[in-house]
Amino acid sequence: MFGAGDVRVITVPDPSILNPTDAIVRVTRACVCGSDLHPYHSLPVSERGTSMGHEFIGVVEEVGRDVATLAVGDFVIAPFAWSDGTCEFCREGLQTSCTHGGFWNSGDVKGGQAEAVRVPLADGTLVKVPDTIEESQYASLLSLSDVYGTGWHAAVRAGISSDTTVTVIGDGAVGLLAVLSAKQLGAERIILMGRHTARTELGVRFGATDVITARGEDGIQQVLDLTGGGGTHAVLEAVGHMPAYQQAVGVVRAGGVISRVGVPQYEDAPVGFGSLFGKNVTLTGGPAPVRAYIEQLLPAVLDGTVDPGLVFDRTVSLEETPIGYAEMDARTALKVMVTP
Amino acid sequence: MFGAGDVRVITVPDPSILNPTDAIVRVTRACVCGSDLHPYHSLPVSERGTSMGHEFIGVVEEVGRDVATLAVGDFVIAPFAWSDGTCEFCREGLQTSCTHGGFWNSGDVKGGQAEAVRVPLADGTLVKVPDTIEESQYASLLSLSDVYGTGWHAAVRAGISSDTTVTVIGDGAVGLLAVLSAKQLGAERIILMGRHTARTELGVRFGATDVITARGEDGIQQVLDLTGGGGTHAVLEAVGHMPAYQQAVGVVRAGGVISRVGVPQYEDAPVGFGSLFGKNVTLTGGPAPVRAYIEQLLPAVLDGTVDPGLVFDRTVSLEETPIGYAEMDARTALKVMVTP
Repeated sequence: MFGAGDVRVITVPDPSILNPTDAIVRVTRACVCGSDLHPYHSLPVSERGTSMGHEFIGVVEEVGRDVATLAVGDFVIAPFAWSDGTCEFCREGLQTSCTHGGFWNSGDVKGGQAEAVRVPLADGTLVKVPDTIEESQYASLLSLSDVYGTGWHAAVRAGISSDTTVTVIGDGAVGLLAVLSAKQLGAERIILMGRHTARTELGVRFGATDVITARGEDGIQQVLDLTGGGGTHAVLEAVGHMPAYQQAVGVVRAGGVISRVGVPQYEDAPVGFGSLFGKNVTLTGGPAPVRAYIEQLLPAVLDGTVDPGLVFDRTVSLEETPIGYAEMDARTALKVMVTP
Repeated sequence: MFGAGDVRVITVPDPSILNPTDAIVRVTRACVCGSDLHPYHSLPVSERGTSMGHEFIGVVEEVGRDVATLAVGDFVIAPFAWSDGTCEFCREGLQTSCTHGGFWNSGDVKGGQAEAVRVPLADGTLVKVPDTIEESQYASLLSLSDVYGTGWHAAVRAGISSDTTVTVIGDGAVGLLAVLSAKQLGAERIILMGRHTARTELGVRFGATDVITARGEDGIQQVLDLTGGGGTHAVLEAVGHMPAYQQAVGVVRAGGVISRVGVPQYEDAPVGFGSLFGKNVTLTGGPAPVRAYIEQLLPAVLDGTVDPGLVFDRTVSLEETPIGYAEMDARTALKVMVTP
């Protein structure tokens, strides 16, 4: 990406092992993330550009001499952050705060929207998929790179169980997979706030029991009406803009939890007596440590119990990646898969 | 209180039963709360004034015909909010959000800095103390009305266990009892941030392992230095002013919890990527449902395992209540007990 709206597919040298803990992964599928649209709107023009993409699955092509758990030919899932797997944060399942880790497209670590990627700290970062994979499973496996694990993080941090009523704010891929996650964790009442019929229909398929298309005060009132005036125990906020935060505050029940996984596009927000404190509302969430969840979520993906890959409604070639960005930006595509 | 700084002890008619669920309690001990200092600084002048006090222990003098669990002569603890004990929030242990409850000194419910109080919803509100009580136990029992349960709420909401490192911000009665609570919940490292030597010494007696007198960036740096650069898992914020919030954000470890029980004197605060979100920090807390904790905390108070009443360092008569306010405001008293 060479500036806002300027995505180009260019030829660069193949990545190579730089550190003995690296692996080179040949990308089988990558994708465009809702969060990639932030730089798509605002990235300053630059001559060198920046590599893009933080979600990919692929096959190990080469390993550094210190890589112990992976071998050439392994089919792997890459989480959206790389991590050593051994530091105090990784051991606690917060790999996004790994003391030696980092994020794709930063420094000399390039992105997943490519033919191949150098993966640092490969033992800690990559998850080997045990079975023989069929192409029909690619989409769901790819969702484990980010959006499924991120929706799951929202639901886990909110402490969802069968006793929890849930509102999900946002009908993007993360919001829809937060619905699926809440359902998997036992929630019986899941209210999805979103305006795009095709998306909210998928949300219903994933487990939403109610759909509210209104926003702002109207939307809040409708959630309150559905819940006897009290709101829901959990609110999963998968947008990141201030109006979504305000909606979350409006629909959360006293003693409840607002769990954010939409990257906040604001720094300050109401948290005082009139918003969170007076009602004993908990605010939680952050960048999902999807690495912590992949092994846990994988079995139901592999045996077809869940199909999170349904969020992909468009596939493009690597050369067509700029079209993928444009379609996601125009909301004509929900989530775009890239086939290098 | 007839305005900022204007506390008067006046003669009013004895309270009487208004509703069949009421009880009249003869006050044995009451006290002045740190939160009473907010109106002491800012209450507009009024001719009628407002009753004060929300913490008291006493003896049941009369019960309404629908009161089932209390009898004349029972020694009781009154929590700082009254509640029905039966609504969905009370059953979940969030009595401060009781659908039929409320707070003292509101409407026709008067306060605890008095000789006697009409207690609404007495069955739900009051906790009968089972044993014969000695005067030496009054202070600790009185602390269960608010400050001990509030410190406990901070610690419980932060999820403290033996694996949790803790910072407590504030050396008022609530902060010190948050230290005690963290210790009771198993914390082995408790850093107390406070500047008043007599108070922090009590904090050490309650279980603080380190005391930091510096504030702001200096104070933050000292906590980081004590924790290998990472901060503590839990931060119990018992002040309520913005600098305390900023300190909390500065010392909380990635993946940790800021638990607030100091009533926020601000509405907006930093919660975005640079403060809470990026580090997956959880913000929790609110008005403590102390009613939910009294029975749980009572045994160790009665058998002398803990002595939360040590926070009372000054006793005044009811007539001297204005002096009690002045001394707490001047910080020459930590917490003032009132003996009607």
